[in-house]
Amino acid sequence: MNVQYRSIGVIHTPFRKIEGMPIQPSGAAGIRGTVDVYPEYAEGLKDLNGFSHIILIYHFHESSGFKLIVTPFLDSEPRGLFATRAPKRPNPIGISAVRLLQIKGSTLHVQNVDILDGTPLLDIKPYVPEFDRQPRFRLGWLGKAKGKAKKRKSDSRFE
Amino acid sequence: MNVQYRSIGVIHTPFRKIEGMPIQPSGAAGIRGTVDVYPEYAEGLKDLNGFSHIILIYHFHESSGFKLIVTPFLDSEPRGLFATRAPKRPNPIGISAVRLLQIKGSTLHVQNVDILDGTPLLDIKPYVPEFDRQPRFRLGWLGKAKGKAKKRKSDSRFE
Repeated sequence: MNVQYRSIGVIHTPFRKIEGMPIQPSGAAGIRGTVDVYPEYAEGLKDLNGFSHIILIYHFHESSGFKLIVTPFLDSEPRGLFATRAPKRPNPIGISAVRLLQIKGSTLHVQNVDILDGTPLLDIKPYVPEFDRQPRFRLGWLGKAKGKAKKRKSDSRFE
Repeated sequence: MNVQYRSIGVIHTPFRKIEGMPIQPSGAAGIRGTVDVYPEYAEGLKDLNGFSHIILIYHFHESSGFKLIVTPFLDSEPRGLFATRAPKRPNPIGISAVRLLQIKGSTLHVQNVDILDGTPLLDIKPYVPEFDRQPRFRLGWLGKAKGKAKKRKSDSRFE
């Protein structure tokens, strides 16, 4: 089944190229960006300012192609693509939970962004721990690599 | 910007119609389903079995159209669409964090599903608390409605 989506806005961040980007929000602590929602969708932002965190869903517009086995950023072993957060995916959809600082008109000011400048926005959802947060978890290969994400920056493998 | 995606599998659950469905995983506790990943993507599932929870990204195939102001399930006040998790959205993309029980071949057995049977799968990501979990949060209008999600079932407004 094919599905077609249309961007509802654009995400702006200090990251103009993939190299040097933090690879997840934990490595992007404090980094600020803006989300410009197209005016025709602005009405849908009502009530969002009550939430401290939101989930941005976006299109990895700079990623093309994919491999089903990849050597992730936090590891030296090849892993199955779906066990990683690598951006080169069959459907290059990204999700990031970011802090919402304020909303001015149809522009959202956000913090802890790990997203490339100019990324097309597909959806915004409120972050709701009751839905999104899991109390107990096992981390697979990432268990060993945990903590490294804060320090690591992206390299050319994500292009 | 238009983007085109192609489903990489199908999600199967006991929910054959929208009415009566739990509206989020917290209301779907214990409900089991399967995710049939198309064989050509099976290789990408390697290493996923180490994770206790995964994020399913899917297309709300039974939702058509949207309104920017909606009266959500857990509330009686009209709210901005992006401050809700309603399925009728400009881009009807759903995300659910579910428990991964086991993987047999290219079929994932999952628990706590709040998804309609036959839903097209777009992506699978490992659930990583360091990326996905927020330690402190404010819930906006949902703060008052919190806890109700467990009891509520879907009605016709989500079709």
